[in-house]
Order: sequence, then structure tokens, then C-alpha cells
Amino acid sequence: MAEPDQTEILPERAIEDDVYALRDETIREIRAAVETDDRDALVAAMEPLHPADIADLLEQMEPGPRDRLIALYGSEFDGEILSELDESIRESVIAALSPEVLTDAVRSLESDDVVDLLEDLDEAQQDAILEVLERPDRVAVERALSFPEGSAGRLMQREVVTAPEHWNVGEAIDFMRARLDLPEQFYHIVLVDPRHRPVGHVTLGKVMSSDRVTRLADLQEDSFRTIPASQDEEDVAYAFNQYHLISAPVVDEDGRLVGVITIDDAMIVLSDENEEDLLLLAGVGDESIADRTSQIVRQRFPWLLANLGTAILASLVIAQFEATLQAIVALAVLMPIVASMGGNAGTQSMTVAVRALATRDLTGANAIRVIRREVMAGLLNGVAFAVIMGIVGYIWFGTPMLGVVLGLAMIINLVVAGLAGVLVPLVMERCGVDPALASGTFVTTVTDVVGFFAFLGLAGVMLL
Amino acid sequence: MAEPDQTEILPERAIEDDVYALRDETIREIRAAVETDDRDALVAAMEPLHPADIADLLEQMEPGPRDRLIALYGSEFDGEILSELDESIRESVIAALSPEVLTDAVRSLESDDVVDLLEDLDEAQQDAILEVLERPDRVAVERALSFPEGSAGRLMQREVVTAPEHWNVGEAIDFMRARLDLPEQFYHIVLVDPRHRPVGHVTLGKVMSSDRVTRLADLQEDSFRTIPASQDEEDVAYAFNQYHLISAPVVDEDGRLVGVITIDDAMIVLSDENEEDLLLLAGVGDESIADRTSQIVRQRFPWLLANLGTAILASLVIAQFEATLQAIVALAVLMPIVASMGGNAGTQSMTVAVRALATRDLTGANAIRVIRREVMAGLLNGVAFAVIMGIVGYIWFGTPMLGVVLGLAMIINLVVAGLAGVLVPLVMERCGVDPALASGTFVTTVTDVVGFFAFLGLAGVMLL
Repeated sequence: MAEPDQTEILPERAIEDDVYALRDETIREIRAAVETDDRDALVAAMEPLHPADIADLLEQMEPGPRDRLIALYGSEFDGEILSELDESIRESVIAALSPEVLTDAVRSLESDDVVDLLEDLDEAQQDAILEVLERPDRVAVERALSFPEGSAGRLMQREVVTAPEHWNVGEAIDFMRARLDLPEQFYHIVLVDPRHRPVGHVTLGKVMSSDRVTRLADLQEDSFRTIPASQDEEDVAYAFNQYHLISAPVVDEDGRLVGVITIDDAMIVLSDENEEDLLLLAGVGDESIADRTSQIVRQRFPWLLANLGTAILASLVIAQFEATLQAIVALAVLMPIVASMGGNAGTQSMTVAVRALATRDLTGANAIRVIRREVMAGLLNGVAFAVIMGIVGYIWFGTPMLGVVLGLAMIINLVVAGLAGVLVPLVMERCGVDPALASGTFVTTVTDVVGFFAFLGLAGVMLL
Repeated sequence: MAEPDQTEILPERAIEDDVYALRDETIREIRAAVETDDRDALVAAMEPLHPADIADLLEQMEPGPRDRLIALYGSEFDGEILSELDESIRESVIAALSPEVLTDAVRSLESDDVVDLLEDLDEAQQDAILEVLERPDRVAVERALSFPEGSAGRLMQREVVTAPEHWNVGEAIDFMRARLDLPEQFYHIVLVDPRHRPVGHVTLGKVMSSDRVTRLADLQEDSFRTIPASQDEEDVAYAFNQYHLISAPVVDEDGRLVGVITIDDAMIVLSDENEEDLLLLAGVGDESIADRTSQIVRQRFPWLLANLGTAILASLVIAQFEATLQAIVALAVLMPIVASMGGNAGTQSMTVAVRALATRDLTGANAIRVIRREVMAGLLNGVAFAVIMGIVGYIWFGTPMLGVVLGLAMIINLVVAGLAGVLVPLVMERCGVDPALASGTFVTTVTDVVGFFAFLGLAGVMLL
């Protein structure tokens, strides 16, 4: 149903400008069709949508209307929609599908998409889906699931077009014309030795533009790289992005070809990893906009609890200076400024460091230099803000020494912020912990504690 | 030079585990070769490195050794290294190259890479590079530069393999075999009508596996989409990621083919956009790990200044309650807890909202629902932390009413945090401002002000 009163505060303009996103108009038509149980109107309205758009639509709907839409849409439901759905609502969408529709949907998917679909389901749903698969597909899916989660082996597709290294262009073309089960999308022919180990690859463009007698080995690409099946998918995505790979063969421990990863899979991983870092830095776990209230409350509670712990730590520091605060109440007014500036500066340094670690731009080769630079930057900005705040503090409260204390505390806290902002992520990376995970909490704990301690401590010494 | 004392605090393990990143050992060899002016050793050590790795290496070095390396490396310097370099040091690397090396390097690049290279240079360097290009390349580059920065027209490559829509597979293959200037990488043949408007495309795989008499039009892909040359590259990247495109033709206002964008270009844009959002959310502009201290000081100063403004605003709120603070100094000890919890909860909501806006998962269709959910989540977590903090406050200071005040302020601030966390990015998006840009500052201003006001205000009413 259209909810006319809500449009006023929404980013209507931005959405209308957008070429790709679901249009509000389409969404209204679809909601109206569901409301009136009009199957023909629903199918007509959904017809122009890509499965990825339909998945977005389902994610944006409330559970009730969503289930009604799925029931009404019936057998039109395409398997690809399941692949595109966010994990957070996959289980409930699958539960809403009739057994026949689910069977058809799952059978229409490629085996690597089925793997991706299964990964996040509970065991009962996994078994239900495995059961409806035809035998060869089931075997392929089960084999893929034998690789560790998040590994290249899970990410790859098993169908690869290969040719013996001694073949020429004509042989390759004739072979491909004769094959009926070529993969949907492929960009390279992988050259293999007699033991089925990849030794190079040629692009289809080169094959197509060369004479039939040209040897494939003479057309090999320089960019050829193989990927171990056990490699972390994050490293795979990094390699694709860093070296501009289009596809790369995956090999087992003996170097034998087991599958291929293409850039579109790597792009999805890259995008997911970036999202994960962004959310982790903000103290949000694996959260989605489609999550229910109870889910996000449970997700965020532990992060807030950790923050409460550090906030109490900061309060314990303040509590040491109760007598000072009692004597000069202006300190209570000004102290959040020092902590806030330190927290901000620390977050700046930390975010740059976390990102640089993720892109491998911060390494042993430049860590010392980066630390030195952050400390210097903290010192310089610290001095600048010390001057500003010294003046503000003096004008506000008329006590020159208060300005000096505020300025000194600012310098100390911004230097510490720069140092902690780089060191915390570096140490976490070294300990094998994702530096995006809890760096933020540690860094602001340091800047809060140091900020309050420096300001109130100096005030106690210099003003009392 | 190896700096042996620095290895102790560096993430040595993580780097050694890594399959792709530059190895510390290689970097040491390279630094030693530069130090001893040993050109052969330098070339030998750099030989296995990809241009992208060499670019990373240059970014990680200090300016002095970097210039010495470039001078020593001389004519081995590959044009692709320039393309891979971070903008922050491109100008200084180009300045360090001898005119002959620069000419060779630039001439070896494809025209779209030259465009990318030129974009961020100052005018003098732009002209110097345009001058050394051969005439057809210069024309191509100048034409690309006529499209607005950040548009599909800038991103595309001009070389496209096309075929009339009525051709069959045999005609296409013969045509390609006869052509000498095929692009380095291409995945599709674009079918065009007589007015050179793209009407569909076929994958090379389909062409190669079909009989010579098959009509190309019968092999067309469903996924075909064209991209207007004026479209924002961010939207292009979104479309590639959302619809799993591999390549897409770019058209002018009349729908005529002007170029093609491939997924590898889209992947770079996507990765850059994600980085930009991450850094903007942390109050860091367009910063890189290779920036000099003076650059990062200047970059971060305005953000810290904005934060100072909001921190002073919060202090002004506190200043209204000086009498209350004077009477009960415990309030000064506890008040940062309320603000800190609100700031954290607000950042959580905001980050989820900013990300969902970027991925088009937060739209007019679900905004009301998301706002309601965030407010409910704030309320529920607020109540939970109110209970915890109420008890902590009571035990700590022995005043039951202090616990009640703390708990109530916590509930108010977490609800406001949830509301502000979604509304601020939504309103910024609606106003055409990047929601990642300043949402953080606004949200924490709201939670600081509300947090201090609610806590101290309630204390004034209920405790005095």
C-alpha cells in the first residue's frame, strides 16, 4: 500500500534520479497488486525487474506483505532471486516458498550458486535443498562444501574449459563446438599439462582473432596466476583487484586444476569485505537493513556493553579528581572537549591505518614512517588547537592558566591519539585479529582516559 | 636500508603469511641496491614484481630513496607503474622521471589509462604528457577528457569490437581474424544497427562454441544493458555489481555507441567509492598512507575544527548546569558515560543507514520501517543499559535517585541516537549531499547535546 504521508521526509529526488534502483512507482504497483490479490498485475509489474531488484524489494518489505507476495507470485519465483537475497531473510523467504516452487528454483541454479545459498541456512533447510537436487549436482555441491567456508574452493565454479598445452587454435575451436556443456560464462581457455596442472591461459579474444594453425601456447597471457583452493577469499579478491585479473584457475595441494574463479565473484567478495570493515569499525556486526528489531538489538548490545566498560573506565579516572572538580567547576564544563577531540583524531588515524592494512599499503616497510608521521600530525594539530582552545578557555572563564592547561592537555591527547590510532590496528593485525574489529573501542578508551587524566591532572597541579 | 630495530613491533607474521603483498625480504634487497647504486641488483630484485606492486613499493618509500630508485631504475620504468600509482605521489614520481623515460612510459599506455593518469595532474604536467603522445592517441585522450570527471565517458575505453546485427558466427570470426588492432581485452561482440546504435551483445564463448552459420542475433545475452556516457561512475559501478555485468557498451545522447566499460574498471571504481565512504565517515578526506605530514595535518584540521565546534556546543549545554554540578560532583563523573553511549549507538545506526543508502537498500519503500526499527532498538537497548547503569550508579554513589536519573537519561539518549542515526543521512541524501560526508559530526552533536542536557537537566529537577 502507498503510504502517502511518508514521502515528505524521504530522499525522493535522489531515488527518482537514479537509473537503476527500484522505482517508487513500481513498488507501489506491486504492493497494490499484493493487497488486492491480483496475480496478473503482480506478474506484469515484476516482469521488468532483474532478480537482484526483486531480492532488494523483498528485503525492503515487512514480513507479512513479503510472504503474501511470495505466495501470490508462485511458480514465477526464479531461483536467481534466492541467490541475490541477503542472508538475513533467506531462511524466511525459503520457508515461505511452496515445496514445488523451491524445488524448481533450486534446480535452475548453477552448483556454485547453490553452495552460496546453502552456506548460511540452518541444517534442516540445507538438507531439504540438497534432497531436491539431482544427483550429480548434489555431489558437486557436497564436494564444494568440503572446502572451508570463505576459501577459494567455496568461491570457485567447477566447470572450466581446458585444452592440452600443445593444441592449436583450430583444435580448440572444434573441441568447443563439439562440447554441449560449456559454462554459461567463461573468458579464458586454461592450458593444462598431462597431469591436469594449469600451465597458462589464453583469452577467447586471442583465440578468435588468430589463425587455426597458431599454437595456443604462443597466445598465452602474462597475467596468468593460479590460486590455491585453501586460500582465503579475501586474499583472492585482493589479488583480482591488485593484478586486474579476469579469471584465475584454482588448484589443489598437488597443483592440479579443480575450478576457476572469475572477476564477478571476486567483486562480490571485495564489496562484502569492504562492507564488513565499515560496519565493524562502527561497532556493528554482520547487520543488514532487513534485520528485525530484535536482531539488531542483540547484535548491537555487546558492542554497547564494551563501550560502557570503557566509558566507566574513563569515569573512574574522573572520579580521582573529584576534589579538583569541586574546586573548579569550569573543568567539568571543558573536560569533554579534550576527550572528544582526542577521540576524533584517534578515529581519523585509525581509519586510515585500518584501510591501509586492508589494501596492503601499510606494511613492515613503512610502519615506522607512518607512526612517526601520525605522531607529528597529532603534535602539529595539537598545537594549533591548543592555541585556539587556550584562547577560548581564557575568554570564557577569564583564567589564563585554565587556557594553558586546556592547551597542554589538547597537545598530549592529540599526540597520543595519533600514536594509538596506528599502533592499535597494527598490533591487532600482528595478533591475527581483524584490525577493524575492536580498534575503535581501544583507541577511544585510550584517548578518553588520557584526555581526562591529562586535563584534570594538569589542572590539579597548575590551578590549585 | 634495513632498519633492524623496527621489525619487533610490526605485523611480521601477517605479512609473511601473505601470498601477494611485497615481501619484506624483497624490499630489503631493493633498498640495499639503491643504497649501493647497484643497478643490476635493483633490476634483478624488481623483475618478479607486477607494476601494481612496484607502485605500492614507491608509495611506501620516503621521497629521497624513492627518487634515487627511480633514477637508478631508469629506462626499465614501465608506463603501467604510473597508472597504478596513488594520486598523492603521482606528480612527484613523474617529476623524478627523465623526459625520455616519461615519453616511453606514457606512449606504452592505452589511451584510457593515459586519461586516468592525467586527471589528477596539474596543468603543466598534463600538457607535458599530452605533448609526447602521438597524434591519434592525443586526440583520443582529449576527446575522453571532454566528458565530465567521474562520468562513464571518462571511464570507458574507446576500442569496441562490433558486428552488424545480421552477421553470423563465421562472418564475425573471419572479420576478427582480419583485424589487426583488436583491443587487449574484450569479452563481448557488440551488435549494432546501421546507425551504430548497440542492440545487443554476444559473449565470445557463445560465438566460439557455435557453428559458423549461426546468426549472432540468436546468441544474444539477456544481461545486455547500455550505459549513457554522462552517467556517474558510481552508478556504473553499482549497476555492474547489482546486475553482474561483465562489460557494457556506452552510448551518447543519440544512443550511438561511443565506447565500452568492462568489469575490471567498475571494480576499481567500486573499491574507491567504498574507501571514500569509509574515510569520510571517520572525518578524513581524500587521504592516502603515502601523504606527507603537512598534507594530513591540513586534511584533518577542518574536520577537527568542525568537531571542536560541536564539542563547544556540548560544553555550553553543560555550562547551563554549573550550579547543579557544583552541588553534586558525582554528576561530572558520570555524565561522559551518557554521552559516550549515545554517540556509540548513533554511530551504529548511522553507519548502517549510510551503507544501505550507498547500496540502494534504504529507499522510500522502507525508510519509515527502518526509522521505526531504529527507534525501537534504541528504546530496548536503552532500557537494558538504564537498568545496568542505574544499578552501577546506585552502588557507586549510594544514591538511588542518581541511578534513576542516569537510567532515564540513557533511555532518552539511545532513542534519540537511533532516530538521528537514520534521519541525518536520509536528510543529507535528500539534499543531494553525500550522506557519508558529515553525518558523523551531526549525529554525535545531537547525542552529546541531548545526553548532557537530559542527564544534568533531570538531575537538577530530581536530585536538588
